[in-house]
Amino acid sequence: MFKLPKYNHPDFSQKNFQSVQNVSVEVVTKDGVAPENYHVTSMYPEYFKVNGKWILATESRMDCVVVIVDDEKLEIKEFRNLKVGDQVVIGRTEDGSEGIYLYVNGFVEENKEGDVFSFRSGRSRETAFTKDYEDLFELLQHEKENGYIVWVLGPAVSFDCNSRKSMADLIHNGYAHAVLAGNALATHDIEGALFGTALGQDIYNQDSKPNGHYHHIDAINRARKAGSLERLVENGDVKNGIVHACVKNHVPMVLAGSIRDDGPLPSVFADVYDSQEAMRSHAKRATTVICLATQLHTIATGNVTPSYTVVDGNVRPVYIYAVDVSEFVLNKLRDRGTLQGKTIVANIQDFLGKLKDRLVD
Amino acid sequence: MFKLPKYNHPDFSQKNFQSVQNVSVEVVTKDGVAPENYHVTSMYPEYFKVNGKWILATESRMDCVVVIVDDEKLEIKEFRNLKVGDQVVIGRTEDGSEGIYLYVNGFVEENKEGDVFSFRSGRSRETAFTKDYEDLFELLQHEKENGYIVWVLGPAVSFDCNSRKSMADLIHNGYAHAVLAGNALATHDIEGALFGTALGQDIYNQDSKPNGHYHHIDAINRARKAGSLERLVENGDVKNGIVHACVKNHVPMVLAGSIRDDGPLPSVFADVYDSQEAMRSHAKRATTVICLATQLHTIATGNVTPSYTVVDGNVRPVYIYAVDVSEFVLNKLRDRGTLQGKTIVANIQDFLGKLKDRLVD
Amino acid sequence: MFKLPKYNHPDFSQKNFQSVQNVSVEVVTKDGVAPENYHVTSMYPEYFKVNGKWILATESRMDCVVVIVDDEKLEIKEFRNLKVGDQVVIGRTEDGSEGIYLYVNGFVEENKEGDVFSFRSGRSRETAFTKDYEDLFELLQHEKENGYIVWVLGPAVSFDCNSRKSMADLIHNGYAHAVLAGNALATHDIEGALFGTALGQDIYNQDSKPNGHYHHIDAINRARKAGSLERLVENGDVKNGIVHACVKNHVPMVLAGSIRDDGPLPSVFADVYDSQEAMRSHAKRATTVICLATQLHTIATGNVTPSYTVVDGNVRPVYIYAVDVSEFVLNKLRDRGTLQGKTIVANIQDFLGKLKDRLVD
Amino acid sequence: MFKLPKYNHPDFSQKNFQSVQNVSVEVVTKDGVAPENYHVTSMYPEYFKVNGKWILATESRMDCVVVIVDDEKLEIKEFRNLKVGDQVVIGRTEDGSEGIYLYVNGFVEENKEGDVFSFRSGRSRETAFTKDYEDLFELLQHEKENGYIVWVLGPAVSFDCNSRKSMADLIHNGYAHAVLAGNALATHDIEGALFGTALGQDIYNQDSKPNGHYHHIDAINRARKAGSLERLVENGDVKNGIVHACVKNHVPMVLAGSIRDDGPLPSVFADVYDSQEAMRSHAKRATTVICLATQLHTIATGNVTPSYTVVDGNVRPVYIYAVDVSEFVLNKLRDRGTLQGKTIVANIQDFLGKLKDRLVD
Repeated sequence: MFKLPKYNHPDFSQKNFQSVQNVSVEVVTKDGVAPENYHVTSMYPEYFKVNGKWILATESRMDCVVVIVDDEKLEIKEFRNLKVGDQVVIGRTEDGSEGIYLYVNGFVEENKEGDVFSFRSGRSRETAFTKDYEDLFELLQHEKENGYIVWVLGPAVSFDCNSRKSMADLIHNGYAHAVLAGNALATHDIEGALFGTALGQDIYNQDSKPNGHYHHIDAINRARKAGSLERLVENGDVKNGIVHACVKNHVPMVLAGSIRDDGPLPSVFADVYDSQEAMRSHAKRATTVICLATQLHTIATGNVTPSYTVVDGNVRPVYIYAVDVSEFVLNKLRDRGTLQGKTIVANIQDFLGKLKDRLVD
Repeated sequence: MFKLPKYNHPDFSQKNFQSVQNVSVEVVTKDGVAPENYHVTSMYPEYFKVNGKWILATESRMDCVVVIVDDEKLEIKEFRNLKVGDQVVIGRTEDGSEGIYLYVNGFVEENKEGDVFSFRSGRSRETAFTKDYEDLFELLQHEKENGYIVWVLGPAVSFDCNSRKSMADLIHNGYAHAVLAGNALATHDIEGALFGTALGQDIYNQDSKPNGHYHHIDAINRARKAGSLERLVENGDVKNGIVHACVKNHVPMVLAGSIRDDGPLPSVFADVYDSQEAMRSHAKRATTVICLATQLHTIATGNVTPSYTVVDGNVRPVYIYAVDVSEFVLNKLRDRGTLQGKTIVANIQDFLGKLKDRLVD
Repeated sequence: MFKLPKYNHPDFSQKNFQSVQNVSVEVVTKDGVAPENYHVTSMYPEYFKVNGKWILATESRMDCVVVIVDDEKLEIKEFRNLKVGDQVVIGRTEDGSEGIYLYVNGFVEENKEGDVFSFRSGRSRETAFTKDYEDLFELLQHEKENGYIVWVLGPAVSFDCNSRKSMADLIHNGYAHAVLAGNALATHDIEGALFGTALGQDIYNQDSKPNGHYHHIDAINRARKAGSLERLVENGDVKNGIVHACVKNHVPMVLAGSIRDDGPLPSVFADVYDSQEAMRSHAKRATTVICLATQLHTIATGNVTPSYTVVDGNVRPVYIYAVDVSEFVLNKLRDRGTLQGKTIVANIQDFLGKLKDRLVD
Repeated sequence: MFKLPKYNHPDFSQKNFQSVQNVSVEVVTKDGVAPENYHVTSMYPEYFKVNGKWILATESRMDCVVVIVDDEKLEIKEFRNLKVGDQVVIGRTEDGSEGIYLYVNGFVEENKEGDVFSFRSGRSRETAFTKDYEDLFELLQHEKENGYIVWVLGPAVSFDCNSRKSMADLIHNGYAHAVLAGNALATHDIEGALFGTALGQDIYNQDSKPNGHYHHIDAINRARKAGSLERLVENGDVKNGIVHACVKNHVPMVLAGSIRDDGPLPSVFADVYDSQEAMRSHAKRATTVICLATQLHTIATGNVTPSYTVVDGNVRPVYIYAVDVSEFVLNKLRDRGTLQGKTIVANIQDFLGKLKDRLVD
């Protein structure tokens, strides 16, 4: 069974931590602009010495600045949210010497020694994923009751009847606490409910339907007419699928708008920074994040998700999984700084089918 | 030398076109919602019979509705832009029988007969691209003076010093009339100007710079401080690159915001539908579109770009090129309906180097 | 349940077939060289008029010449196998006019009419594969008793403990009549049995083992010492896996050598044309072929496998499936002429797990 | 200008090297089978203590055993080449303690210190390749006169008229000392000379030619008739291309047969271990190896090519470049142990065009 790893708190009683001064701050003089030499966050736990005490920044995310509030609290802010007068932490070291301590080994067990040489260093389609799946099954069973599972879904999730149903079943069975996606995922999911197609192609047998290229915009138009996705479901128009499952189970959906959108559907965010804010509100609570077949949303979610979170006063890891058939997409997540992401090379149709078979009776 | 293909106008004197009634319309009763049975546009030329005359929809794009204005003009509208009272064209046939005629063969020369069998039907890394490049060189030389060349740039364009410089040189030499991109492209281009890096990695020799992960947000912060990209260039902070070339040559840049953004830079659109509108305003004028290493922006641009445009009263083709190392990305453009796109499998570093070597002395 | 499609024999009673002359032949004058204007086979059924009768070439394959034996039988020969005196069919038409008739529609049902336009024409990771899997499950259940199932396995099949075991279980349960692979697949499968690794990496949990880079060559060395794979299994050294399953169930394995090989293992063919011959001997009997994660062997098998076979005097289709995470690899199969191949974009670990779960209790 | 890095010889005067015993050996008792606990080579320099002296294994390759000849010379042998009586080095340590010393830092300059964190650790399409190209230009100019440049070519090199011509021009201008390829590369190159096509598709403008699927086998048949590639060129049948350039400039071509082959052409090796032997004979002399668009031949060549070679008594690096549009293929080279390979993500058409433009007037 799954067991949360223990967090080894840094030992701030050591002399070098005790002797350093409080972290420096400088004040914002123009909205949305940080003072020179601002410190920027990573996804790892970072501690800041304030009023003689080392404080962990909670609800963090990468590439933001740290604002000290009321001389004792830390707020992690995007540049665009900086306000004149904000007290921004200054300093670009991470070893504690300036009152900033980046701590990467909180959950790391003792290292096994490595060989001079081994084949196969990276993760690819050739990696053995059996144990990763087993770990994930156990993790999700744990998180269902004890965590906050955030799903990040690319449109392809609704392109196959089985993957669409599997995802809906996982939601119905408590395995999703929030769903982050775009207009396309929801549109094609609704198209699936109304017409059994995605972009006009049957999601069971791949038949192209006559005038099928109307389906996705008919879906959008009908939703716009209904006024909201909730009403569309209540109407009885949409009787199955992912949107249906979210509405029925009160699982919040963040639908970020994009420049590719037709429509959009009701409740889609037009403003990308509002989207990001909404995504981050779930990332702050997330304990496990699973990203399927979307480069954009995966990296965006990775950006706002730290490697740790504080639940009931305890520091615990946030698990991030990214699943795609393309190693490039998966490696890019890492190249963009989400180092803790675990990547699985799979068609998400198969991935979701496996999860559903294992987790849902 | 490049020669524009002649457009063969459909022959509306034929009896079947003459005898049909005017196209039907229905009135919008709720903002943003089309009446049932609305007609939706494709990227091809479509004619509508209004007041006894067959009229071509100009400034079209796919997946929109057709609104008749003043009983004689056609406006192509996104669903979200529909207003109560708009007269929307009704009908889902395309053969003229309901007053709607989709015309796909305007530029097609007589078909060569095909074999029962040939190997190698698709386009891939194994396709011979020599003639495509030559055609493109000639096309761009023509379009420089006689067309409107729109570039769609993924962030990777600024990840290599040579591709970044080649793109800038093309802009300086008149080969770009508009640039569509996102916050990341502009950010890393400015990072390149300020620090010689992209995400902290040297764009010449790949060295990771100390604290290089600050570079892109330092670039953003400095731009936000300056207040605009124009001022950043005028400041003298940014002395080269793509943003610099656009500012200096008054080439408009549309920077669409995304959920992945840090910052954002000044002038980045927060609202994706404003972005789309701005992109479409250039797509309407476009005669050639070149999309490099971005799936999202390529498909988004493909969505708003028709296969034809009317210049000085003449119908001419709009050429779309998409370049990427991934066949999947390129095929997806086609799967999303941009059928006229010509795809080239290449690293855009090489692609831009070739264009620059050939077009810029 | 699966039902074999009926073959619609061409109607040779039609006048145009009756009136034509017998096919022409010319004699080979140099071993391994065909006479000018030789006819070359495709993977489709082809009929030749000999002695006034239209005869179907059975046991065909693409890119070979047709030799008439004893004035009445057709033999399909590779160029290298031509002998002085062989009577080679001449002619490069396929419509019957020269006594050669290529027949592509034997199994085709009446065509559904298509739309002018539809999104999503190709097959990719975004294709809905649910029905393809269901069809395959039914097909394999049928073929287990009534067909000849040939597996073509890339080395990655033995890189994950679960895919390796699933494949072995399928063999143990009668779902494989022959296995075509290379030295690497068998080597890493034996490595899995001896050490639980592939190239030194644990096939369950991905741990790199100390001196693990010795494992695959230790496996080879031990097999060479044993003298044959059969003895290695009988020894009790190899207690599980694919090689073990083949030996225990007397399923023939063709192991083709390659220039990448260490070793090789005993029974690996050094001569590639001997390999091809051996592969073709199974392709001639094949009714279903499933190719997993190997570009080279998949295309090689595609080359020697016709789209039809004659079983008990009846013409039936040969089903070919190719599974890979890379669309390029899958599309290439088609670009090399294996037009009937059905492609599935999946990690073969997931694919094999699904088959095993469904077909093996 | 290019300058060879200096090799820092290990300092065997150190006590720990002096005090150890000679390396142990054991005798082969069955042809092709190594004794237990045999030592296996890597691609790095390895020294063995024999007769009290530390001797470097020259002409090495990975995954082979070390045989001591005449009590003083080292021979690196494939398992299949072991003969009864061979004295095989025993031991699986690499630190010198058993008389075996693996030396990886011979060419390494002092390490720069790294950051705790940086984005973008791997190499991908997003890597800046400008300096890699410049280094390669300089390297090739140096190696033309002072080295031995081995090219490893996938068939796609002959699929575009420009890449085919560029490669031929490089050969004509002294930039190739050996070419390793397969039957397909040579076949399609000859097809290009005879018909201007590859697999029936025009290598300039992509037109599918009538009966074009005959072209590659017509090319093979004509070559088989001629009896050798040399005669085919002398005939005047083949007037350009890669085969032509090799024949005219007496550049040896190793054509390895494969299970995919039609034909084969004359001089193609049927036996893969003969192929490997022939490839290794060039790898032993190689100072630079460039592998284009072939996974199989690239990894095969990587297997037989060490990271160093001894020229006129001096140890120097062997440079390996691998070029492909697929990161997976390139990463696989590393995963199979060729750690020194430098990878470039590019369409080889562009790559060859750049080299030709820069190196050939």
